[in-house]
Amino acid sequence: MEYFPAALEALVEQFARLPGIGSKSAQRLAFHVLSLDDDEARRFADAIVTAKKTVTLCPECRNLTDGGVCPICASPKRDESVICVVADPRDMVAIERAREFNGRYHVLHGVISPMNHVGPDDLEIKSLLARVARGGVSEVIMATNPDTEGEATAMYLARMLRPFDVRVTRLAYGIPVGGHLEFADDATLMRALEGRREI
Amino acid sequence: MEYFPAALEALVEQFARLPGIGSKSAQRLAFHVLSLDDDEARRFADAIVTAKKTVTLCPECRNLTDGGVCPICASPKRDESVICVVADPRDMVAIERAREFNGRYHVLHGVISPMNHVGPDDLEIKSLLARVARGGVSEVIMATNPDTEGEATAMYLARMLRPFDVRVTRLAYGIPVGGHLEFADDATLMRALEGRREI
Repeated sequence: MEYFPAALEALVEQFARLPGIGSKSAQRLAFHVLSLDDDEARRFADAIVTAKKTVTLCPECRNLTDGGVCPICASPKRDESVICVVADPRDMVAIERAREFNGRYHVLHGVISPMNHVGPDDLEIKSLLARVARGGVSEVIMATNPDTEGEATAMYLARMLRPFDVRVTRLAYGIPVGGHLEFADDATLMRALEGRREI
Repeated sequence: MEYFPAALEALVEQFARLPGIGSKSAQRLAFHVLSLDDDEARRFADAIVTAKKTVTLCPECRNLTDGGVCPICASPKRDESVICVVADPRDMVAIERAREFNGRYHVLHGVISPMNHVGPDDLEIKSLLARVARGGVSEVIMATNPDTEGEATAMYLARMLRPFDVRVTRLAYGIPVGGHLEFADDATLMRALEGRREI
């Protein structure tokens, strides 16, 4: 591929490094950038540098923030005695969207995954334990994904939290609302039966 | 979506403007950029600005170039009496890859498309006619896509080139090499029969 100018090839290569972008897509994106006007291209480049420079982690919950304590940790309206533990900032957004939870969060930035060489020390676990140790927390809700690694991480955290005087809970398993019993897998059905409630 | 820092939202928005990138993908790409180290992010941003700044059109064939005449137009080894007309620089790359053509190119940067408000004046047609008018060209090969707009553009160019003393030809239609007759559409089969040759 020496048919395109070097600067274009370099841009194609940059796009091709992004996750889920193959070489054909990278080419398409690079051509699109060439079709932008100068201002638009500059804005795109600036957005990358600015995001990288200004986005940091909240010193409290480790969520992404523009600097300083994040809006949720700063809000006096949020119940600071309940911490919901998520693996990823996007999981926090999903829970916020449900408008059901009024406590605080803690973002682990991953799950324990020996296959990918991610151990407890690579995650925001120490900062969580420090928060709980400081006191004032009555419940920690595990909201990691219901897969093997998410489960293992939740179990690990539950064990680490045992010395503290806090309730450790887990999101409920069951049939998704609007889902079809017919298509539910055995494990989900089993959990849904186990967790059945009076109506 | 005011859950993420503004700088992150701005970056997500930039990615979401790219063709074929939905909001979920844009989020994934923006998070990936945050996970890069500072140098990598800077290189990505620079690649955008540099490509936009240095890539221009070859004054001769209108192909993309780093400035000045493109390598193909500059090469004395390429036959300047044959011009292959393509809609897009990527089509040129496809033909170069086949290693069969040794002439020059002309890149139209689109096809005539009334539906998309693209007329002849929006394409590099005047520059093609000027090249042919200058003399020394014996054949112009139409290599636009074999779809309605590509065909219409080729027909239009053939008509515009009639006053000049040049052969105007078209890429052959037929069954793709390695293709299955069973899956070929009627139009392709018809063209393949029409264009049959002695063996």
